[in-house]
Amino acid sequence: MIDAKRLERRMTELARIGGSGTAVSRLGLSADEQRARDLVGAWLTAKGAEVRRDGAANLFARFGREGEAILVGSHLDSVPDGGRFDGALGVLCAVEAVESLVDTKVRLRRPIEVVAWADEEGARFGVGLFGSTATFGRLTQGVADRRDRDGVSIGDALRALGEKGDPATARRDPKELAAYLELHIEQGPFLEEEGLAIGVVEGIVAISWSRLTIHGVQDHAGPTPMRIRHDALVAASSVVTGVRGIAREIGGELVTTVGNLTVSPNIVNAIPGKVTLSIDMRDPQDATLDRALPMLDRVVREACEREGVRYELEHYWRVPRTPFDREVVAAVERAAQATGAGHRRILSGAGHDAQYMAAIGPAGMVFVPSRGGRSHCEEEFTGMDDIEHGANTLLGTALELAVTL
Amino acid sequence: MIDAKRLERRMTELARIGGSGTAVSRLGLSADEQRARDLVGAWLTAKGAEVRRDGAANLFARFGREGEAILVGSHLDSVPDGGRFDGALGVLCAVEAVESLVDTKVRLRRPIEVVAWADEEGARFGVGLFGSTATFGRLTQGVADRRDRDGVSIGDALRALGEKGDPATARRDPKELAAYLELHIEQGPFLEEEGLAIGVVEGIVAISWSRLTIHGVQDHAGPTPMRIRHDALVAASSVVTGVRGIAREIGGELVTTVGNLTVSPNIVNAIPGKVTLSIDMRDPQDATLDRALPMLDRVVREACEREGVRYELEHYWRVPRTPFDREVVAAVERAAQATGAGHRRILSGAGHDAQYMAAIGPAGMVFVPSRGGRSHCEEEFTGMDDIEHGANTLLGTALELAVTL
Repeated sequence: MIDAKRLERRMTELARIGGSGTAVSRLGLSADEQRARDLVGAWLTAKGAEVRRDGAANLFARFGREGEAILVGSHLDSVPDGGRFDGALGVLCAVEAVESLVDTKVRLRRPIEVVAWADEEGARFGVGLFGSTATFGRLTQGVADRRDRDGVSIGDALRALGEKGDPATARRDPKELAAYLELHIEQGPFLEEEGLAIGVVEGIVAISWSRLTIHGVQDHAGPTPMRIRHDALVAASSVVTGVRGIAREIGGELVTTVGNLTVSPNIVNAIPGKVTLSIDMRDPQDATLDRALPMLDRVVREACEREGVRYELEHYWRVPRTPFDREVVAAVERAAQATGAGHRRILSGAGHDAQYMAAIGPAGMVFVPSRGGRSHCEEEFTGMDDIEHGANTLLGTALELAVTL
Repeated sequence: MIDAKRLERRMTELARIGGSGTAVSRLGLSADEQRARDLVGAWLTAKGAEVRRDGAANLFARFGREGEAILVGSHLDSVPDGGRFDGALGVLCAVEAVESLVDTKVRLRRPIEVVAWADEEGARFGVGLFGSTATFGRLTQGVADRRDRDGVSIGDALRALGEKGDPATARRDPKELAAYLELHIEQGPFLEEEGLAIGVVEGIVAISWSRLTIHGVQDHAGPTPMRIRHDALVAASSVVTGVRGIAREIGGELVTTVGNLTVSPNIVNAIPGKVTLSIDMRDPQDATLDRALPMLDRVVREACEREGVRYELEHYWRVPRTPFDREVVAAVERAAQATGAGHRRILSGAGHDAQYMAAIGPAGMVFVPSRGGRSHCEEEFTGMDDIEHGANTLLGTALELAVTL
């Protein structure tokens, strides 16, 4: 069993890095993310692990020498003004589970590695799942040149951390890895609503991201009569309403969100000349997104025609539903059962570092409840009892896999 | 008559300061605005004027000693990525008209001053008509502490220009001023549509500015089902659509605009937790705004109730319709008539530095056409023929006022 007191102490210690009150701003590839990595690395070095950082700033801490490793972890970065649990809790529970596993003195057939993925959120450079993408060989060409708002590139940020600036060097041969396990907060309301401590994650929903740029005619808000206006924000507002309407029309579990919207020139007395916005759509079934995307095309076309504005719409990212390995899911379920806590099978609505591993090898995840379903905000919260059950589920799963897989 | 070639040369020279292609970014109280002031000051010093800058960074260049002055001018700052004409053209035509007046050797009963008001646009600090407000004693308390996005205050910006940082010292006794004249681009489509060179401005429309903050519930865009969402941007979009609807419902000359809208945290995969936006409404009749404002209250209330979000709505600025002095308007009309160019009486849809002067003494304005009605953008354009007629109208009006008023 894991040591809940030690886990809680370490949660408090880690939350101080980039923290302010209950909020945490610990952006990917920042100095604060590095401080968090150093802290985790120091705990595991003290326990006897062999600790290293790779070219994408991922941290690996290995126990045991030969063979394909069981990888357990999550990420240490947060969104701006995020909380203490998203990502960090998964790394803390991995550390706790693996230390407890080492303490049991059980003879393991496989080495175990704790991983802290770099820049999962992509809040700074717009490249989510950065570290795991690098390790699993799915980086897009030229990604090191992506820049943040201040003109700093991913390559620059890596060099500032002492790396060479080429994240592609982080790639690992899939044969080095036997399985990947991750504990994460649910970020949705279902476990809390049903009074359950553990979600046995069966996979990740299908996701599509689109980007829309609307070109209106910038003009003075005073002397320009309504009849000659082509207002990019009026068109964009119809799109936001229409995107909400797609979820209402299709129903079921489809979720649709406009999260990013930027107006130019964005001053009180100018008719907006340009608006860019993002559209995020997710559903357990790929077929639902196949139906939603043409509806989005129509919503955008009609909104822009009505206002007489030009636009470019790009569906630039699409990931199909990711199923997790049947054996790993079953092992997570047995481990959850063994804790005595309430549990259910569940699908993840958020993307996770487990995503690309699932394409090349066995992966699985453990969810713990999010109070009010909240995440990506300082109100993120999961109670210690649930965390303890979750960490024990992670421990039980890792033990079974390390012995039997 | 004015010297159109000299005027055109100076237009080109001035447009280089803060200019790039046909665009000009010469923000109020910036080093570029100061360079523009230095250039205009040098022209007028060479002509024999007594040139000074006041505590709000306004430039005054005086010809003649005793008595109440005729003040002629406009502003030298622009919005970001604005054009070469808004403000700058009025200063250039004032310089040209006054130099021509001095050259006529007519014996004037009154001194004449050219003025270049500082920071008319308010694009940097959000305080429009800054310089003229200071001169006419209408600054609000504590305005010097207003800060830009980088934390620089108006006081700091003035000190960086060599002033003491207290714009209130710019106040002038209204008794020093006999009248104020300003040439400006129309910024609307009417003169061009009707093929006229000159607008004889009768006054400025009534204006109201409101600010709305919507508090939704920030959450992850993936695992949060539609049924528990409180999306600040969905509510804001209904408000934008509703604000457009107010203009459609009331009709006539009412214009309504949401020009500024800012989303937080503004990332692809987060449900917007907070949106702030501006509402600008204008009409020739104060009574129309009295009718539109309660409609805005209802639009906001209904949009926010529908989405289950909290809000604060503040109607923070209201200026009644500003009528210009009957005698000055008649003088502008006679001067326009004398140029032989087509002209009409017109109301300004934009606020101008003439606004506060109109409350304490005689003021008047001359409009020249804006191609396509465009302004606050690099496409701003007025043809040289129209500019020449406009400058001669300014010259004729100033001459009549300086001799007869």
